[in-house]
Amino acid sequence: MSDGCAGPALGIAARLRARETTARAVTEAALARIAARNAEVNAFTAVLADRALARADAVDARIAAGEAVGPLAGVPFAAKNLFDLEGIPTTAGSRIRRTAPPATRDAFLVRRLEAAGAICLGALNMDEFAYGFTTENSHDGPARNPHDTARIAGGSSGGSGAAVAAGLVPVTLGTDTNGSIRVPASLNGIWGVKPTYGRLSRHGSFPFVHSLDHVGPFARSVADLAAAYDALQGLDPEDPAQAPQPPEAVTPGLGAGIGGLRVAVLGGWFGRQQSAAARGAVTAVAQALGATATVDWAMAEASRAAAFLITSSEGGALHLPTLRTRLEEYEPLIQDRLLAGALLPAAWVNQAQRVRALARESMRALMADWDILLAPATPVPATPIGQEMLELDGVQVPLRPSMGLFTQPISGIGLPVVTAPVPRAEGALPIGVQLIGRPWTEALLFRAAAALEAAGVCAAPVAPAFAAGAV
Amino acid sequence: MSDGCAGPALGIAARLRARETTARAVTEAALARIAARNAEVNAFTAVLADRALARADAVDARIAAGEAVGPLAGVPFAAKNLFDLEGIPTTAGSRIRRTAPPATRDAFLVRRLEAAGAICLGALNMDEFAYGFTTENSHDGPARNPHDTARIAGGSSGGSGAAVAAGLVPVTLGTDTNGSIRVPASLNGIWGVKPTYGRLSRHGSFPFVHSLDHVGPFARSVADLAAAYDALQGLDPEDPAQAPQPPEAVTPGLGAGIGGLRVAVLGGWFGRQQSAAARGAVTAVAQALGATATVDWAMAEASRAAAFLITSSEGGALHLPTLRTRLEEYEPLIQDRLLAGALLPAAWVNQAQRVRALARESMRALMADWDILLAPATPVPATPIGQEMLELDGVQVPLRPSMGLFTQPISGIGLPVVTAPVPRAEGALPIGVQLIGRPWTEALLFRAAAALEAAGVCAAPVAPAFAAGAV
Repeated sequence: MSDGCAGPALGIAARLRARETTARAVTEAALARIAARNAEVNAFTAVLADRALARADAVDARIAAGEAVGPLAGVPFAAKNLFDLEGIPTTAGSRIRRTAPPATRDAFLVRRLEAAGAICLGALNMDEFAYGFTTENSHDGPARNPHDTARIAGGSSGGSGAAVAAGLVPVTLGTDTNGSIRVPASLNGIWGVKPTYGRLSRHGSFPFVHSLDHVGPFARSVADLAAAYDALQGLDPEDPAQAPQPPEAVTPGLGAGIGGLRVAVLGGWFGRQQSAAARGAVTAVAQALGATATVDWAMAEASRAAAFLITSSEGGALHLPTLRTRLEEYEPLIQDRLLAGALLPAAWVNQAQRVRALARESMRALMADWDILLAPATPVPATPIGQEMLELDGVQVPLRPSMGLFTQPISGIGLPVVTAPVPRAEGALPIGVQLIGRPWTEALLFRAAAALEAAGVCAAPVAPAFAAGAV
Repeated sequence: MSDGCAGPALGIAARLRARETTARAVTEAALARIAARNAEVNAFTAVLADRALARADAVDARIAAGEAVGPLAGVPFAAKNLFDLEGIPTTAGSRIRRTAPPATRDAFLVRRLEAAGAICLGALNMDEFAYGFTTENSHDGPARNPHDTARIAGGSSGGSGAAVAAGLVPVTLGTDTNGSIRVPASLNGIWGVKPTYGRLSRHGSFPFVHSLDHVGPFARSVADLAAAYDALQGLDPEDPAQAPQPPEAVTPGLGAGIGGLRVAVLGGWFGRQQSAAARGAVTAVAQALGATATVDWAMAEASRAAAFLITSSEGGALHLPTLRTRLEEYEPLIQDRLLAGALLPAAWVNQAQRVRALARESMRALMADWDILLAPATPVPATPIGQEMLELDGVQVPLRPSMGLFTQPISGIGLPVVTAPVPRAEGALPIGVQLIGRPWTEALLFRAAAALEAAGVCAAPVAPAFAAGAV
């Protein structure tokens, strides 16, 4: 794989620099593609054609003038509709915010990608207020999985996953509070990274749970994902929750191999309640990374329970004033959860915060011996839209919360995760594996991801029905 | 004032170094003093004579051998009874914990003072579980103010304040969640410092409110206070909440003057609901420091309300398991507050945390223009034990919570405060003034405190009835 075609996004930038195409041509093609195919997946909720074409012309003018353009010059992207985009309301998947005042400035991450030359085409479907794993949004309609449009694209960043897997754009932005990047990455068979808590600025994104919200990109190759992730860096004085990387954190460079990485499979909680597909994907990744040990993290279930309580109480508190007056306008799937969350006793949440601190501490001890831990990203591949229950280990469990069985304990303690897509035999749906690292060691995760991609174990092709003409 | 007698504590250390006395003689004198006069103020709840004499002998042996001893060699001190002292239960002012297992190691701060040569004589009275401003402890009896033993010593570190003002020991340790160092410093007319949140290790102290608890010393001179504070420094790997000072924090050295310090008086909330004594004390300190401007911090009352909610909910959550089974053994004054706190909705506490973040931000903006802000430490001097109500601005208000009117908004956002004692005309009770700084600028506060002491505006004499034979 040459540098110039390490992925569709970097390929576009390389062709622009070589003057083989223009940003306008790429943008027009992407807009035409969205016009032709978006209805099948319902990924976009707003398309900003005029804005995109104007910015494309500006990029082309710079190239024509011989000026430097960024590493993502001309690359089309789109953002989950909870990121501010100047001139349109930030709906966060809701009906209530359709009449909110238009944003007056782009979100920090959107500005970062555009500073690198990328071009924003619009806003993407999501679970209302990011509270869900399925993007069955009753206001905007469900996002649909490009691998089988009768199935969910996952959530809450479902539109972000579907847009990339359907080849509408090569890069998207999402957010992950309990698994909302990792679940759609898994179900759509694409790469996604949920960075360390505090790594990237959340400024200009509609909040859900202050102490759990993360932001990050999706892409179809590791090089594209890493390029987008690199462009998103930068300390933002407007985000008080963003943390500078501590000097002692290990951050070796992105390399091609896995030499020296100590990789183990998470057992216990992470080895139960899953399909053969999930188990098989973890096994394939473990073999490729030379991981033979299985380790147990006894606090997994408690960490997930703590994240549940913190999520519903912080989310409920955030929405309480509006719940009091406009309850029926909320998504039916989240009304009860937000109300219940707003009524939780603080003593429970205090206890959850204590459990979370203990969970963080016990994982820190476990990861003294390991660089990367492996776990399924979802218990099953994409399920049919509307399905309520799921059978796991012979027990019927509610499907929607169960999609976060393996993601929620990890984001609850802020660890970075790259979700690696494992394609399956023809006709079978893809599924993802979490590569979990110590705080601030994203570079190690990219190194393992690149090795998995090079070995052919992981890949993120456009869904077959959308392969022709993908951007 | 020479270096050798800058305060009673440093004076003792100087006499030891000059071999004019011995640690054993000093310790025996202090133990005799406690035996003779403690009953009048009820400051000590445990006296550790054997331990103290053994350590005194060890200090004397080092001196006799010509070995180096620390800057506080031979200085008697005592600690609020929520600090672990090896071999006795850490009661935290409660009846419930009288049967707790004895502590197996001294608290970090106790170890720090003893590493500097000081000698711990015992444990001091306090409000049960640090939840109060009056030390009207029904299990151990009330601490009494040495200036008038019918009056309160303040709280919750009331024993720490009374022991110093009665000349039983020259240095004590206390804690401050909402004002529990500053209130007794004010009412007993002594110096106290509540450092920046996270500055000193809390390890080995019984917790109250994780996000608000501070620890710090009391003394009768600025030099003694600074010497104790210096000895207490040190990053403790066992306290996860302790924060290293950020490199950008301003920390000029301790100087004699006030040149260049920008000092203002806090108006608004801090200018109302107070006695003429409180107002007069602030005026005297302001004049001495050349402060002519009065500034308003609009979020004071909201910051206090937030601290109230966070305190009762975190405190209630901490005690909930015991409240369920042993409610009647709690101090009558705190039963209802802990129960109510345990039942608070998390949405209220979430909102309180948001208010607190805004308060911190607005104060940061205000303090861009000022190095030190002045405010009363308490609205009134010491009140009679048992008094329930107080008249402030012509309105009857409950006395006990009102003692924290001016301290609670400040500790809620973690700012460092030195409480400066203003003695009053003969027969009148002393009262304290808060010198409030930006985070991590304790050194500036000590500089102003030293100037106030040198100018004779502030002083911390032993209470007249206890002056003879004070330690």
